Amino acid sequence: MSLKGMSTRTERDLMGEKEIPADAYYGIQTVRAKENFPITGYPPHKELIRAFGYVKKAAAKANADVGVLNKNIAEAIIKASDEVIEGKLNDHFIVDSIQGGAGTSFNMNANEVIANRAIEILGGKKGDYIKVSPNTHVNMAQSTNDTFPTAIHIACLHLSSGLIRSLNDLIESMRKKEREFDDVIKMGRTHLQDAVPIRLGQEFGSYRRLLSRDLGRIKRSVDLLYEVNMGATAVGTGLNAMPEYIEKVTEHLAAMTSMPLHRAEDLVDATQNTDAYTQLSSAMKILAINLSKIANDLRLMSSGPRTGINEINLPPRQAGSSIMPGKVNPVMCEVINQISFQVIGNDHTISLASEAGQLELNVMEPVLVFNLLQSFTILQNGMKVFRDFAIEGMTANIEHCKELVERSVGIITAINPHVGYETAARVAKEAITTNRPVREICHERGLLSEEELERILDPNEMTNPGIAARELIFGEE
Amino acid sequence: MSLKGMSTRTERDLMGEKEIPADAYYGIQTVRAKENFPITGYPPHKELIRAFGYVKKAAAKANADVGVLNKNIAEAIIKASDEVIEGKLNDHFIVDSIQGGAGTSFNMNANEVIANRAIEILGGKKGDYIKVSPNTHVNMAQSTNDTFPTAIHIACLHLSSGLIRSLNDLIESMRKKEREFDDVIKMGRTHLQDAVPIRLGQEFGSYRRLLSRDLGRIKRSVDLLYEVNMGATAVGTGLNAMPEYIEKVTEHLAAMTSMPLHRAEDLVDATQNTDAYTQLSSAMKILAINLSKIANDLRLMSSGPRTGINEINLPPRQAGSSIMPGKVNPVMCEVINQISFQVIGNDHTISLASEAGQLELNVMEPVLVFNLLQSFTILQNGMKVFRDFAIEGMTANIEHCKELVERSVGIITAINPHVGYETAARVAKEAITTNRPVREICHERGLLSEEELERILDPNEMTNPGIAARELIFGEE
Amino acid sequence: MSLKGMSTRTERDLMGEKEIPADAYYGIQTVRAKENFPITGYPPHKELIRAFGYVKKAAAKANADVGVLNKNIAEAIIKASDEVIEGKLNDHFIVDSIQGGAGTSFNMNANEVIANRAIEILGGKKGDYIKVSPNTHVNMAQSTNDTFPTAIHIACLHLSSGLIRSLNDLIESMRKKEREFDDVIKMGRTHLQDAVPIRLGQEFGSYRRLLSRDLGRIKRSVDLLYEVNMGATAVGTGLNAMPEYIEKVTEHLAAMTSMPLHRAEDLVDATQNTDAYTQLSSAMKILAINLSKIANDLRLMSSGPRTGINEINLPPRQAGSSIMPGKVNPVMCEVINQISFQVIGNDHTISLASEAGQLELNVMEPVLVFNLLQSFTILQNGMKVFRDFAIEGMTANIEHCKELVERSVGIITAINPHVGYETAARVAKEAITTNRPVREICHERGLLSEEELERILDPNEMTNPGIAARELIFGEE
Amino acid sequence: MSLKGMSTRTERDLMGEKEIPADAYYGIQTVRAKENFPITGYPPHKELIRAFGYVKKAAAKANADVGVLNKNIAEAIIKASDEVIEGKLNDHFIVDSIQGGAGTSFNMNANEVIANRAIEILGGKKGDYIKVSPNTHVNMAQSTNDTFPTAIHIACLHLSSGLIRSLNDLIESMRKKEREFDDVIKMGRTHLQDAVPIRLGQEFGSYRRLLSRDLGRIKRSVDLLYEVNMGATAVGTGLNAMPEYIEKVTEHLAAMTSMPLHRAEDLVDATQNTDAYTQLSSAMKILAINLSKIANDLRLMSSGPRTGINEINLPPRQAGSSIMPGKVNPVMCEVINQISFQVIGNDHTISLASEAGQLELNVMEPVLVFNLLQSFTILQNGMKVFRDFAIEGMTANIEHCKELVERSVGIITAINPHVGYETAARVAKEAITTNRPVREICHERGLLSEEELERILDPNEMTNPGIAARELIFGEE
Repeated sequence: MSLKGMSTRTERDLMGEKEIPADAYYGIQTVRAKENFPITGYPPHKELIRAFGYVKKAAAKANADVGVLNKNIAEAIIKASDEVIEGKLNDHFIVDSIQGGAGTSFNMNANEVIANRAIEILGGKKGDYIKVSPNTHVNMAQSTNDTFPTAIHIACLHLSSGLIRSLNDLIESMRKKEREFDDVIKMGRTHLQDAVPIRLGQEFGSYRRLLSRDLGRIKRSVDLLYEVNMGATAVGTGLNAMPEYIEKVTEHLAAMTSMPLHRAEDLVDATQNTDAYTQLSSAMKILAINLSKIANDLRLMSSGPRTGINEINLPPRQAGSSIMPGKVNPVMCEVINQISFQVIGNDHTISLASEAGQLELNVMEPVLVFNLLQSFTILQNGMKVFRDFAIEGMTANIEHCKELVERSVGIITAINPHVGYETAARVAKEAITTNRPVREICHERGLLSEEELERILDPNEMTNPGIAARELIFGEE
Repeated sequence: MSLKGMSTRTERDLMGEKEIPADAYYGIQTVRAKENFPITGYPPHKELIRAFGYVKKAAAKANADVGVLNKNIAEAIIKASDEVIEGKLNDHFIVDSIQGGAGTSFNMNANEVIANRAIEILGGKKGDYIKVSPNTHVNMAQSTNDTFPTAIHIACLHLSSGLIRSLNDLIESMRKKEREFDDVIKMGRTHLQDAVPIRLGQEFGSYRRLLSRDLGRIKRSVDLLYEVNMGATAVGTGLNAMPEYIEKVTEHLAAMTSMPLHRAEDLVDATQNTDAYTQLSSAMKILAINLSKIANDLRLMSSGPRTGINEINLPPRQAGSSIMPGKVNPVMCEVINQISFQVIGNDHTISLASEAGQLELNVMEPVLVFNLLQSFTILQNGMKVFRDFAIEGMTANIEHCKELVERSVGIITAINPHVGYETAARVAKEAITTNRPVREICHERGLLSEEELERILDPNEMTNPGIAARELIFGEE
Repeated sequence: MSLKGMSTRTERDLMGEKEIPADAYYGIQTVRAKENFPITGYPPHKELIRAFGYVKKAAAKANADVGVLNKNIAEAIIKASDEVIEGKLNDHFIVDSIQGGAGTSFNMNANEVIANRAIEILGGKKGDYIKVSPNTHVNMAQSTNDTFPTAIHIACLHLSSGLIRSLNDLIESMRKKEREFDDVIKMGRTHLQDAVPIRLGQEFGSYRRLLSRDLGRIKRSVDLLYEVNMGATAVGTGLNAMPEYIEKVTEHLAAMTSMPLHRAEDLVDATQNTDAYTQLSSAMKILAINLSKIANDLRLMSSGPRTGINEINLPPRQAGSSIMPGKVNPVMCEVINQISFQVIGNDHTISLASEAGQLELNVMEPVLVFNLLQSFTILQNGMKVFRDFAIEGMTANIEHCKELVERSVGIITAINPHVGYETAARVAKEAITTNRPVREICHERGLLSEEELERILDPNEMTNPGIAARELIFGEE
Repeated sequence: MSLKGMSTRTERDLMGEKEIPADAYYGIQTVRAKENFPITGYPPHKELIRAFGYVKKAAAKANADVGVLNKNIAEAIIKASDEVIEGKLNDHFIVDSIQGGAGTSFNMNANEVIANRAIEILGGKKGDYIKVSPNTHVNMAQSTNDTFPTAIHIACLHLSSGLIRSLNDLIESMRKKEREFDDVIKMGRTHLQDAVPIRLGQEFGSYRRLLSRDLGRIKRSVDLLYEVNMGATAVGTGLNAMPEYIEKVTEHLAAMTSMPLHRAEDLVDATQNTDAYTQLSSAMKILAINLSKIANDLRLMSSGPRTGINEINLPPRQAGSSIMPGKVNPVMCEVINQISFQVIGNDHTISLASEAGQLELNVMEPVLVFNLLQSFTILQNGMKVFRDFAIEGMTANIEHCKELVERSVGIITAINPHVGYETAARVAKEAITTNRPVREICHERGLLSEEELERILDPNEMTNPGIAARELIFGEE
């Protein structure tokens, strides 16, 4: 940070002095962190800043409640925290998203911003930490090791409601298409090879159910976040935090955020273990895998228009090529694939970070939370535009779907129960070799009458359980 | 497969003829698969073979029930399937664990082995498929696409009970140590740097709770496997499977296996989607991450014996070095790390395979299930020996733990509420620079009396919530 | 290991006694390892055993050369090692592929087998370690930490020649197809949407070049393995190994294996770092990614036959379905996809293991080498059958390819330079909407004459650089 | 994008109309992309924008050279491109880093910004595309499919020089420490257990060599990027690009950027394959793995100060705890670990994206390049601060290192050649059990004289190859 020509104030700690921009609410520890970690250029996620506002406010309240924090100071901290919550001080959160130190710099940044703002509220000048100390007052009875995880939980919970809404909307959209396409008969494919008929609505029903299970996985994972470890302080033993404070701080947090937050049963456990994040990230990874599969299916079904499968049409969203006029590409599916790859990669980083926890703390939480929050954000954003710009306006080429079914060989399967697999296989081979319809060959070979074939080879029938014309085998029922 | 000098029989299909070893129960399709896929050299997992036995038996019963399968043939198939279940025919399951074709070769192998054994039971000679046909009879009303996933589910369910038992035992072992070490005061460490005291029992309590959550994750994931897709046939529409058969086949399977199996609500969904596997694999991955963290902690705490931390002793299990006499290494922890890395890598392969599903089927299931079953096996085996050979016999170096606490600077934290963070920081710095005890410096500086220091710096007190000697701050209560 | 009823001998070490099967060449340390690590059930890879044979033989020679090892003992060790190299003692290598202890148990197993066999050669009885001691004699001037990495290198080098041969053959096969299909004009596709014409031979040329770069990557990575760390002993400092021995042992190894092996410049570095393996695994991962892309392309181009793209035919290798008669699936491509997923997952495990190295050693080498050797094996096997059973016999549907090009809209691109992108885009839109040929619309709108269109829309021309009929724009040249 | 109250202009394409902010240089296609892809909120990387400036400038020059582009228009495009290169128009590059469409929106954004700026230069008003058309003129003889990969290459090459410099500096720093610590004898550790002595300089030498190999890997990977595919147009066939243009465009690019760029031998290959990126990412991943290992070593060696290993001191960079006064953490190592996890996760995303290429194009390039550029950036930044703030100022606790060696049991290894492994093992066991020095026990047991022990147990000797006091075994030489 070049401060050349800027108005500054001087702050000092046990390591020495630093110049701070005069109007900055952050202080010397933040500046040290800024210098130490010029890594990604990305500041903390806005939801994380907001969550720190809640945490510091709740702690000030609880400390005042139990009488260890002076009421005036507490009130000033609370007011300053409110400004953090409202996003008014976002520009003063300047530490990098990837940083050493287990989030200490995030916490220090928050402590300093709130302390300096509180000092101003109390009529002092920034840097006059006798009035309000970042550590002694704002951070009272706290450690990075309880405030940072708690703030992560709150940030994730805020983001999760958007994610869940986005996923819910997508599920509803799939349900609509499931109904709309219920009677569109098309060729089913396995191994990308012609199989047997299916209804397009059945395929969308499968997507709907898949995503519904993802919704359940996400929700169950989010539930783990309601457990927070405020009061754990340094290693979970609660050193320097009075039991009454521990009780109250989470109650305040729950009330402020309107979330059913509660204290983790065992604070040592809650301070060192990060399985709630890996579970959440896994749930998002599985969602990503599933979205990618769906996007791939839609890209396959819409391939063409003239030299592909061309069963469905995705709404055109933008010119597809700077050189090929008229080309329109399935860009909303492609962005879903890419978001999925990002989320899967993020999950990998999160796994690595989680495994690297040691003894009483996981110091890799900053990179973990950076990836976790990004996964939330891009999945929510991606599913929204996928629904709005791809699923909602999709149409089916009903006639073409029907033609493909009739042209196919796979319908031979329905003849199996009547003539046996081996005979049917010979018919299939002849149909493919001679490029003639299955029906014609069956008839020619005298296997079944035309009327029987008519009934057995009805594609619609094939999309439901059962053996067509079963009375030919079992007799009338 | 060189058949030179072996007695053989000839089988043929639409692609031509093949020689089959005369005493082999498998047939031409199996031989084709064996030739096509000489990949890993690993035959199918024994539990997968067994599960196929159940599936084929249940299908034969259900087909007989609804009258489409001749009773005699059905009985022979059932007997042959029983032999598969008992493992008597394992040597005849020869297709490779990694294979193209979505498991078709596994299923064909099972069909052929059972058909040939059934033919023998009916007094015929192997290869006389008029008597019992692998496809028309053994595979009746079935497809690879419903039998293979169903068999995977059953195999996983069998393996999961061992995994759960192993994990449960490990949790109980952790609980025992939690109690045993409850009063062992030791130094807590964050960032591998001295922090504040904690009790060794608290650390084991944290492991216990972490693993207990893993147990919940595994169990919830396993529950998904009770849903099977028998009756789906080729693409989930149930083509060629009578509704009565679909009903009965899963009932039979449930009864035979004594598992609460039930039919998936939507067979199209259940045939093409593999999220039950990714969820299960994710749960095992999270367990692996957590086990690795615990193993790393134990390796750190047992480091030394003379030049490391040396707080605990792991039971010696084998000579640690071929060159350094007397060296004993934490090999049971190291194997846990390695199992974890394998399971995490397996999860990666499973994710890739799951994402590669297309339209009505995921043809990558063979590699998926190969990795899934391996993860089950090695986690179960690993946790068992980890418990038996590392956790159970572990002891604490109680005196050394105590000495380390007393020598440390981190205990200064307890003084914070009495003198403020900034003053405490100055004391800490002096203690480190001069290599003198914190207590001495506090006293020298006149910050607190010796008696006060005695109470405040009591390590035992520091392992529970609260401010030591709080009445010095707040007055008597 | 249940020894009930078996004839045994008793061995003892500082930890106690163990019963050993009387005819077993391994000894007490092997039995301890077997008990400690019942993990995967997979014994050491055969190439690893063989490589240990070379290592122990070379060490015995060098030790005899420098006069520290008695000639008779040395000769017996050499003979026993030869039997290991020949694979005669494979059944006595029983430790699990995944094991704690950085390969110590592999080394101990080798030491004991060779010692006992040497004892027999010298007329003694198994277990009489006074004659030949596993540690003092067979392991003389060695440590697991130099013998195990050296053995891994040799095993990888042996396997790599097979891998390289397999890849080379595949490249040649691609080259053949590149020529064979040089004049097959087909539709090019981007985003799975119709783009502009390309020749099928050009696509195979692209595969050939891609795989040739992979070959280069593999070869360059393999080169790193010629550096071995024999003589490093425990931590790379060469403690207990005489400089003359260090010189000779690698010379012997090079001579025996006919490989240009040489001593690593810095043995400390070579003992603790595993980047040669991660580089090799990365090269295999990239090959896997590329093979998977090629396999996917072939699956797309062969999709159908009636309801897909159907531009090429893969040789039928086996019946594709147990329920759908006549179905043939691209199983050789699918197995390549699955092998790729396995290799990518293996690379992940290898990365985790490599990152977990600490200080003077990476103790995670067993799981690392397990995955590395597997990747070699399955890639080599997979590429062989992919070439033999998929690429070699592939044919093109030349007429159908031509029809698709003519039916397509993408050829409009060639008109761009003549009428501008915007006008061309309007023609394209009309062509798609009205389902009429591009040529017709251009003509109708009076944009270009029929003769001009004939020249400009020649698909063959479009597969080479240049502007068709450029003299219409620039004048005659 | 809400445009409420802004001054706007209207643009239209075949899909309809859009309002564009009046002062925006981008146009309707950019706005469509912005609407379609509100995913990450991250705009294109600055180096990517700059690279597009070069590409468009070179194309305009080459098109003018061969006479297809009007000189005036060409000049205006060149001037506008220069402004892009200088970063003056960065604010007008607004499409999201993750987007569908294979980079088409990046290219369109560049085309529109340059067209509108060129129009202004020619005296026209933004949006008057008759003067200069984004597609017909700026994109002449180009496609996204050649310009985007070429721009990626150039961006990576720019970033790579920073990365290489940073890595080089770190290597030099390691070399300095290697020399500085050359005579610091310390305990070597394997399995985190005491092994045998080593010199601290040897450990830093090992880091230096490891990183030097990484440098080689990075450089060799970067070399692949000098090959660009300009002239490939849509699918690599060069359709609509005159051979003379293809020749010239890369020559211009090379001259402008002062990089040895050259045309790929086969443009079809170069357009669809992404192995240059996966190789580059793999090289960065391996570097990340190695950096993480080094960071872990330093964290272990600096653990303490009172209750850890405490062999080295990392320079204090910031207060380590908001609650524990005086705590200083190895934050510069921790940030390296986290950067490594990010880069490894990024590599995973890149692998997924690379594998998803289909036929003539890899449409997943946007997410691929997003991760690739991030890996470059954070590695460069991270290594710089790691060197400056951790390695350079690191010091050794020489006395403590020496004490640890003397206290250890591992030095017993040097006695092996004199008394045999088995006897030495018994001495070691007694030493550990009785907590007495090895030397004392050897002497007491009469194994060696005091003088002999003095020579054999000299730690300094143990850090070099050889058998101490070998003449006791072999006689005088």
